[in-house]
Amino acid sequence: MTTPPDGWEARGRPPSWFRRFTFAKYAETRDFLDGVAALSEELGLHPQNINFATTHANITIEGADQQEPGAAEHAFALKINALAATRAGQ
Amino acid sequence: MTTPPDGWEARGRPPSWFRRFTFAKYAETRDFLDGVAALSEELGLHPQNINFATTHANITIEGADQQEPGAAEHAFALKINALAATRAGQ
Repeated sequence: MTTPPDGWEARGRPPSWFRRFTFAKYAETRDFLDGVAALSEELGLHPQNINFATTHANITIEGADQQEPGAAEHAFALKINALAATRAGQ
Repeated sequence: MTTPPDGWEARGRPPSWFRRFTFAKYAETRDFLDGVAALSEELGLHPQNINFATTHANITIEGADQQEPGAAEHAFALKINALAATRAGQ
């Protein structure tokens, strides 16, 4: 079983990975989401679900084909963490 | 009270407006969301919440200052409808 990266919580069975990101204002949330979209295109992976409002974004990552998240999803989640770390709200 | 545009449902008190949009594939969902983000910048308004996954986006619009949605939100929702109408999944 792949351990989720720092800040992500494994939920369910098969597990998906969940993390809530918070920001100081909408423009930062928006920048973060644009970054996630760019990463998705680059990696050919996208979160199973994103729920966002003015100052937060909740992201859920699933594995492919009903499997648990693996190495590709781990790398994706780490890159999302790195994106968030550049935002003032973190 | 402002009536929500076609396809939107008033929920809660004060009411917010909710609509679910469905798409044939992720690229269409993504295009739609990019369009909503562009509209937000243009109008200086953004949805209170967006929840999206591979082939759908659920959008909630609130009024400003704890009020019900008004003319500005009505115009915003109509433009979101128009965006969605250009997608194949609709």
